Amino acid sequence: MTRPMTRTVLESATKTVIIGFDQPFCVIGERINPTGRKKLAAELEAGDYSTVERDALEQVACGAMVLDVNAGVVYNSNPNPNETEPPLMREVIELVQGLVDVPLCIDSSVPGALEAGLAVAKGRPLLNSVTGEEERLEAILPLVKKYNVPVVAISNDDTGISEDPDVRFAVARKIVERAADFGIPAHDIVVDPLVMPVGAMASAGQQVFALVRRLREELGVNTTCGASNISFGLPNRHGVNAAFLPMAIGAGMTSAIMNPVRSVEMEAIRAANLLMNHDPNGGAWIGHAKILEAMKDGASFTEASQAAQGGRTSGRRGGRRARA
Amino acid sequence: MTRPMTRTVLESATKTVIIGFDQPFCVIGERINPTGRKKLAAELEAGDYSTVERDALEQVACGAMVLDVNAGVVYNSNPNPNETEPPLMREVIELVQGLVDVPLCIDSSVPGALEAGLAVAKGRPLLNSVTGEEERLEAILPLVKKYNVPVVAISNDDTGISEDPDVRFAVARKIVERAADFGIPAHDIVVDPLVMPVGAMASAGQQVFALVRRLREELGVNTTCGASNISFGLPNRHGVNAAFLPMAIGAGMTSAIMNPVRSVEMEAIRAANLLMNHDPNGGAWIGHAKILEAMKDGASFTEASQAAQGGRTSGRRGGRRARA
Repeated sequence: MTRPMTRTVLESATKTVIIGFDQPFCVIGERINPTGRKKLAAELEAGDYSTVERDALEQVACGAMVLDVNAGVVYNSNPNPNETEPPLMREVIELVQGLVDVPLCIDSSVPGALEAGLAVAKGRPLLNSVTGEEERLEAILPLVKKYNVPVVAISNDDTGISEDPDVRFAVARKIVERAADFGIPAHDIVVDPLVMPVGAMASAGQQVFALVRRLREELGVNTTCGASNISFGLPNRHGVNAAFLPMAIGAGMTSAIMNPVRSVEMEAIRAANLLMNHDPNGGAWIGHAKILEAMKDGASFTEASQAAQGGRTSGRRGGRRARA
Repeated sequence: MTRPMTRTVLESATKTVIIGFDQPFCVIGERINPTGRKKLAAELEAGDYSTVERDALEQVACGAMVLDVNAGVVYNSNPNPNETEPPLMREVIELVQGLVDVPLCIDSSVPGALEAGLAVAKGRPLLNSVTGEEERLEAILPLVKKYNVPVVAISNDDTGISEDPDVRFAVARKIVERAADFGIPAHDIVVDPLVMPVGAMASAGQQVFALVRRLREELGVNTTCGASNISFGLPNRHGVNAAFLPMAIGAGMTSAIMNPVRSVEMEAIRAANLLMNHDPNGGAWIGHAKILEAMKDGASFTEASQAAQGGRTSGRRGGRRARA
C-alpha cells in the first residue's frame, strides 16, 4: 500500500520538527505541567520558575523533540483558571523559548490560555487539544485556522470516552471532517486515540494498535498518545511502557506525549526507530549506547545525555562544553 | 479480518504447548547447541553432559516453553557428523526428557540425526528444519509426514538466502505447497522468514514485520526466527532485541528460537504478551515483577526465576523447595 506521506510540520524560531510516517518517532516532553504537581504549582504561584527551567533543559537534553507546556495551575489566591492560566501560559512559553530551541506544544483546556500561548509562541507550535465535543470544536478549530497550526485531536466527544474503539475512530473521523470544513487539512490533525490502562482493560493494547493502523490507513493522520497510561496500576510500569512504545510505533504511531527523562522508554524508542529504518546509519542508536556507557560510571541518564550533547542543553545561553 | 485460528500443537510426554495467534509467544530455548561453543563440544566428546543438564534446567526455569536440541558437534576423534550426530542426538534428548517436561525441538542439518531424535522423542516434537532446497524438501517432508510432527520451514532455497523479502515469501509458499502434497497441513509449518542484521541491512526490521504479516494473512502459518540475529554487530544488542521482539509479536510473530536466560528479552516478551491480551489477569507479568524484585536483592535472573518456580526446575527429580 502506498499513500502520500503525511507530514505534520512544527517549528520553533529556528528549528523544524516533522511528525510523519517516514520520520523518527516524535517525543513530546510532558513535564512542564503543574497538574498533579503541587510543589510546582506552589512555586509558580510564588513566581519561582526554576523547576520549569530545569524541566525544559533536561527534557531536551534527554531527547525531547517538542516540549508540551501546560499552565493548568490552581492558585490558592485565585481558583479561576480562566484568569490565571492565560498570563501564566504566556510567561512560561516566553521563558522556555529563551532556554531551548525546540517547537512547543501549547496544552490547555482553557481556550483563552491556548490563544494567549499562540500569540507569543514563535514558529509553528502544536495546539493541544481539540476533542469531538461540540463546544470544543467550535472554540478550538477557529484558532487552529486563524494561527495555521497543527492540533492534537482527542477521540472523545459529548458522550465521554467510549470503550468501543470503533466509536473512538468515528469521533476522530468527525473531528477530521469538521476541521476540513474550516479548511484545515488532515495532515495538521494529530489524533490521540486514547490509551486505556491494560491492567483495567485487557484489550487496551490491541485496541490502540488496531486504531493507529486504521487512523493511518483510512484517515491518513499522524497519531499521538499519553503513553504511560497503558501501564497505570501495574508493577514495573516502565517495562510495560518499553514494550508498548515499540509495538505502537510498529503499528504506525508517530508521536507520544511522555516523560523523556527515562532511559528505559527512550531506549525502546531509539531501538524502534532503528528497526523502522528511521535512524540513518544507526547514528542515534550508537549515540544512545555511548550514553549508556557513561551511565555505567555512575552518571544519571540526564547527566550522561547532557554530556553527550556537549553542553548544548544550555541552549542559547550556551558555550560551556561538557567534560569528555 | 477473521481467519481460522492457526494452532501448531507440540507435546512432551506430559505437556502440551500450542503455538498460535491467540497464544502467548512461544519461547524456544536455543542453548543446547554445541555450534560455536567449543567448550561444550569438548565436554560432549568426553561424555560430560553437565552443561546440557544445567542449560535444560535453567532455560525452563527462566520461561522457555520448548527446548531446542542441537547435537551439531565436530569431534576431534571423528569429523563426520553423519556418524556422530545421530547417537549424540538420541543421548541428549533422552537426558533432557529425564530432566524437564517441556516439548522439544529437534534441530539438525543431518537427516539421520533428525530421524534418530524423532525415534526417541516423546509426544510431538517440533522438527528443525526444512528449507526450500530440493534435496532438503525430499529428505525432510517424508519424515514430517511419517512421524506426524510440525516442522520449521526456513525461507531459503537452492539459490541461497534472498535479500528480497518477496522471494523469501515465495520460498515459504513453495514449502507450504510441497508440504500439502505430502498431506502436511499449513498449521504444522512454522515459517522462519529469516532475520537479517539491521546493522548490515537497514530495512531488515521492516522486512520481517511485513513478511510476518503476509505469512499470517496469506498463508495462515505460524512463524519463528532466530531473534538475536537482528542486533548482530550493534552495541547494546539486548536493547535492540528487546524492542524487536515486541514489534515482531505485534506484527504477528508467534515464536522465536532464543536465549531465555536473559531478563531483558524475557521481560519484553512478557510485556508484549500482556499488551496482546495473551496474559489472563496479568498473572505472568505480575510473576515477572516479583522476579525483578528478587533480583534487587542480588539474585540472578536464573536464580530468582528458579526460586519463583518453587524449585520446580529440578523437574521430575524435584522436591527441593526454593528459599522464599
